[in-house]
Amino acid sequence: VAERIAVIGAAGFAGALAARLVDRHPRYELAAVTARGEDVGQLLSDLYPHYRVDLPLEELDVDRLDVDAAIVAYPHGASAPVVAALRERGVRVLDLSADFRLRDRDTYAQWYGEHGAPALFGSAVYGLPELYREQIEGAELVAGPGCYPTAAILALRPLAARGLIADVVIDAKSGVSGAGRAATRSTHFVTVDENVSPYKIEGHRHAPEIEQEVGVQVTFVPHLVPLDQGELVSCYVTPAELVDPVPLYAEDYAGEPFVELTDRAPGVRDVRETNLCRIHARADERTGKLLVFAAIDNLWKGTSSQAIQSLNLMLGRPEAEGIEA
Amino acid sequence: VAERIAVIGAAGFAGALAARLVDRHPRYELAAVTARGEDVGQLLSDLYPHYRVDLPLEELDVDRLDVDAAIVAYPHGASAPVVAALRERGVRVLDLSADFRLRDRDTYAQWYGEHGAPALFGSAVYGLPELYREQIEGAELVAGPGCYPTAAILALRPLAARGLIADVVIDAKSGVSGAGRAATRSTHFVTVDENVSPYKIEGHRHAPEIEQEVGVQVTFVPHLVPLDQGELVSCYVTPAELVDPVPLYAEDYAGEPFVELTDRAPGVRDVRETNLCRIHARADERTGKLLVFAAIDNLWKGTSSQAIQSLNLMLGRPEAEGIEA
Amino acid sequence: VAERIAVIGAAGFAGALAARLVDRHPRYELAAVTARGEDVGQLLSDLYPHYRVDLPLEELDVDRLDVDAAIVAYPHGASAPVVAALRERGVRVLDLSADFRLRDRDTYAQWYGEHGAPALFGSAVYGLPELYREQIEGAELVAGPGCYPTAAILALRPLAARGLIADVVIDAKSGVSGAGRAATRSTHFVTVDENVSPYKIEGHRHAPEIEQEVGVQVTFVPHLVPLDQGELVSCYVTPAELVDPVPLYAEDYAGEPFVELTDRAPGVRDVRETNLCRIHARADERTGKLLVFAAIDNLWKGTSSQAIQSLNLMLGRPEAEGIEA
Amino acid sequence: VAERIAVIGAAGFAGALAARLVDRHPRYELAAVTARGEDVGQLLSDLYPHYRVDLPLEELDVDRLDVDAAIVAYPHGASAPVVAALRERGVRVLDLSADFRLRDRDTYAQWYGEHGAPALFGSAVYGLPELYREQIEGAELVAGPGCYPTAAILALRPLAARGLIADVVIDAKSGVSGAGRAATRSTHFVTVDENVSPYKIEGHRHAPEIEQEVGVQVTFVPHLVPLDQGELVSCYVTPAELVDPVPLYAEDYAGEPFVELTDRAPGVRDVRETNLCRIHARADERTGKLLVFAAIDNLWKGTSSQAIQSLNLMLGRPEAEGIEA
Repeated sequence: VAERIAVIGAAGFAGALAARLVDRHPRYELAAVTARGEDVGQLLSDLYPHYRVDLPLEELDVDRLDVDAAIVAYPHGASAPVVAALRERGVRVLDLSADFRLRDRDTYAQWYGEHGAPALFGSAVYGLPELYREQIEGAELVAGPGCYPTAAILALRPLAARGLIADVVIDAKSGVSGAGRAATRSTHFVTVDENVSPYKIEGHRHAPEIEQEVGVQVTFVPHLVPLDQGELVSCYVTPAELVDPVPLYAEDYAGEPFVELTDRAPGVRDVRETNLCRIHARADERTGKLLVFAAIDNLWKGTSSQAIQSLNLMLGRPEAEGIEA
Repeated sequence: VAERIAVIGAAGFAGALAARLVDRHPRYELAAVTARGEDVGQLLSDLYPHYRVDLPLEELDVDRLDVDAAIVAYPHGASAPVVAALRERGVRVLDLSADFRLRDRDTYAQWYGEHGAPALFGSAVYGLPELYREQIEGAELVAGPGCYPTAAILALRPLAARGLIADVVIDAKSGVSGAGRAATRSTHFVTVDENVSPYKIEGHRHAPEIEQEVGVQVTFVPHLVPLDQGELVSCYVTPAELVDPVPLYAEDYAGEPFVELTDRAPGVRDVRETNLCRIHARADERTGKLLVFAAIDNLWKGTSSQAIQSLNLMLGRPEAEGIEA
Repeated sequence: VAERIAVIGAAGFAGALAARLVDRHPRYELAAVTARGEDVGQLLSDLYPHYRVDLPLEELDVDRLDVDAAIVAYPHGASAPVVAALRERGVRVLDLSADFRLRDRDTYAQWYGEHGAPALFGSAVYGLPELYREQIEGAELVAGPGCYPTAAILALRPLAARGLIADVVIDAKSGVSGAGRAATRSTHFVTVDENVSPYKIEGHRHAPEIEQEVGVQVTFVPHLVPLDQGELVSCYVTPAELVDPVPLYAEDYAGEPFVELTDRAPGVRDVRETNLCRIHARADERTGKLLVFAAIDNLWKGTSSQAIQSLNLMLGRPEAEGIEA
Repeated sequence: VAERIAVIGAAGFAGALAARLVDRHPRYELAAVTARGEDVGQLLSDLYPHYRVDLPLEELDVDRLDVDAAIVAYPHGASAPVVAALRERGVRVLDLSADFRLRDRDTYAQWYGEHGAPALFGSAVYGLPELYREQIEGAELVAGPGCYPTAAILALRPLAARGLIADVVIDAKSGVSGAGRAATRSTHFVTVDENVSPYKIEGHRHAPEIEQEVGVQVTFVPHLVPLDQGELVSCYVTPAELVDPVPLYAEDYAGEPFVELTDRAPGVRDVRETNLCRIHARADERTGKLLVFAAIDNLWKGTSSQAIQSLNLMLGRPEAEGIEA
């Protein structure tokens, strides 16, 4: 019998793709998709024709939801109470918001404000399978990482784990889907087209998340580039010691189904619509820096296909099921 | 009487724009445009309809060139002998290649190989008016800076001049016109579209040029982004001392006609088809870094309109003539 | 003494560009820029940094406006009452809305509903200088054509004037700036990027405007393409008689400063940020059709620079002043 | 046992995608990929990282090829002799070139010149399963349709079959992948970006192919638009009689797995990376025209996934195997 999965908040980019991936999953049944406001009642296939999921978007009614697990794709703040309600009813939850990613309450308060379900704070597993595979297996609440942290942590972890990072600058470039479905001045075609610009230069909420997992302070600046899906992080590490990083990455990522190590610079096209993270690390003899570049699809490995990867582990399924490259 | 100007190598992106800017200049006369190979004989307006310069591209014949000055837009290596020939005939030269930018022969040899006119090596003024205005005035040979160096040096110079740079990472993003007119796999639409990728990560020739003018070693990595004209450099400075950079930049760039200081992050659209460099500098209290972002149009301030700016100074004209914002 | 010009509704794409063109006009003084709602109080240069017009957007107060002429860039319906108020105070008006373009009241009512200033209906000159130059000279109220009609009428007029159009299909492609500044699902980057789609296929309001000037019924379907500024109309004419159109176009457009006839297919890049309309007409012997392609910049010749062209005529200035190619 | 398939000419866009689709097909084995010139010896995954096919590109040696079928992705002219050699050895062939699409020798000669395998001319089935499903089943030589004909024929066939087309204009828009992998001035990013332009306006080779299948003369003009994969044909039909086309399309395409009929205008994003053709047909009461819009992915349904669809039929497999939406 198939596991029944609901996607809560399926009208946004992340939720819609999660719904599509569940819908095509060889094992899962997409039991319900929900939305808020004006999207309720529409077919998901009207909002996202290319996903071809013909279910209607329903208003969320936690009590009537008959599912084994739910992917929650709400904004931070809005997510926590819904997650709490689902957990009370025994539903396993993969949460895509920031509400359960951080483990330090003060850090959460500083970057996000008050938490919507304090009793649950700190109880989730951080949903990056390459780091927390065993804890995710069978977990009941998993917090899907942010898209930038996914790429940045995978890029830096082999160095961080060996204490090799004395200082690091992370310059990130993201496609516009990362800004979400809301029509704003920032997402207007005319604003983005033929443009490149840094944003949140005064501090982006993904910095503390990266720092939590990498264990060192990071300088992190994201940039918006004129494309849809894709994210590149360029990491400039001042190493505690200049080593050849290639064998370290080979060792740490041996056998990882969704990490590709390359001997040349990756581009985001290489991983479009895949759950892959493509990484190139090299020592720069001239400057003594370590350079690490990681490319992902922000909506896939950065968000929704990674959610399936974790969900597979939570539900005892093969990790790559339904999201093979 | 108008000064007569030739553009040597006008079939490429940089030369064609230089020709257009000379052609519309209120004072100069575009006396000749030259090309090599199959482009000879074509109208410049057939290759670049939007520039509306109806001159035919001629084969270069230095002896028959009757001009006061020439802009040479040849690749490095090919440029030096032509520049030498022009100088022998008393023609003032603004060279857009890398052949006369560096002042250290060993550095040139290391990055570019043998020089095509060793006797002239080191005799040019570096054509960044914001740094070398007085030397450019009346100069007979000026080397136009590379596009990345233009943005990076303007971004870093106020800090460098005060000894404030302990370490610096420069992450640059450029539109495709920076790769030139040659049709290659790298410039094919399908390669670039929906992509972002770092390139020349093993070392880019603009690094030594930046280092020459900034006085410190730099980590410099360029990235190709899917747009035509525009370049952003994101500079991450580990400062010798954490200072507020704003007043330093205000002081150094007061009265500069082509430097705009902003209180928010610049985008490359803000400066498209202008000779402006738009800069935002800020101290990041959390990490102790200084962040400086500079946006230019790589073909304008990064190359061809900056050439006119220098040419104006060389010929005793008002610096902004013909390239006002 | 300079003529003083106001731009009413300068926060939108059309009004902002009109303000920039007035601001740089060698003769005019940009006396005021107005906006509605949340844009009031902002600097125009904050909304449109690349236009570099540092005036604050004011609330419109017709009684305090001390100007010789106004460009009104309001949506249809909202425009008419403001135009009426301006005309009562003796201000010459170039209106960019649809309110005064049509000459038939029923047609207006059918496509737009009730008119906001019935007494003025029909009193404007249609602001396409290539057709109505003499009437625009000295006119007090001019209705700027829609962007599609501008290109389509210029493309078809030489055939229409000779009764050569038995049937015509106009397939138009426009960049996203034509959809205006409002952030909507349609203008979201992710909707437009890597997409082409027809819209308003049940009928677009520019059809009756084209028909009014061309004198025959037209099948007109616009398409949205992923670029910012630019518009191409592809006209497929079933001719009353198959003639060589080239001499007809040469005759009609001889001496026109802003019409370019070409011997090959035009692209919208060829006319970007110019007041030019670039036209190629040819007979297709195989099918017996006449093909006419016309490219404009929808914001320039299609809207705002054409407004300056008409304004120059209204105020007795040289037609091309301030908008030379 | 799996059928063994070779892809001949796998370095180009069409062949590479065909190779990827064969490689992932649940039943087929990708036995060999071949190329010509400098691409020989490279891994297909080096040229197309995102396809993740790690086979080396070999020089073609027809005698050593041990396969059940081959997809030939050579240019017209070059294809015919290779197809003949393969057929002599009993290999079933799906040819993607134009060499076997036309059934009239004179028409071929007129548009393409001399044929490379006259003995085979006219012996292929036209590989559009929606029209020729039964003939393709078990066929030994199938000619894959051109991308424009695929969309245009599917858009027009229900009308053509009923004699309803008195006249038709087909205005097509295609992404740049349709121009192939060759780096030329036309495919340079800077040529295409922010541009729309008609091409081959003097006559495109796909016109006779469309006419062969639709049975009437067509006016066909393609346009290049700035995107990668995607193709839209906008068909303007002057009908013999104005009918409601909706039931006709519903009838003809009932049960077709890869034709989607919609009640609104399709965009090419809706079908990206699918074998689907999405069609909207409507009567325009105002003008008496029938409007039909069809969107496909030019590389998928327009070329390579349609090849798999036909290959499945040729080899007795389920038609949708390996290319399900």
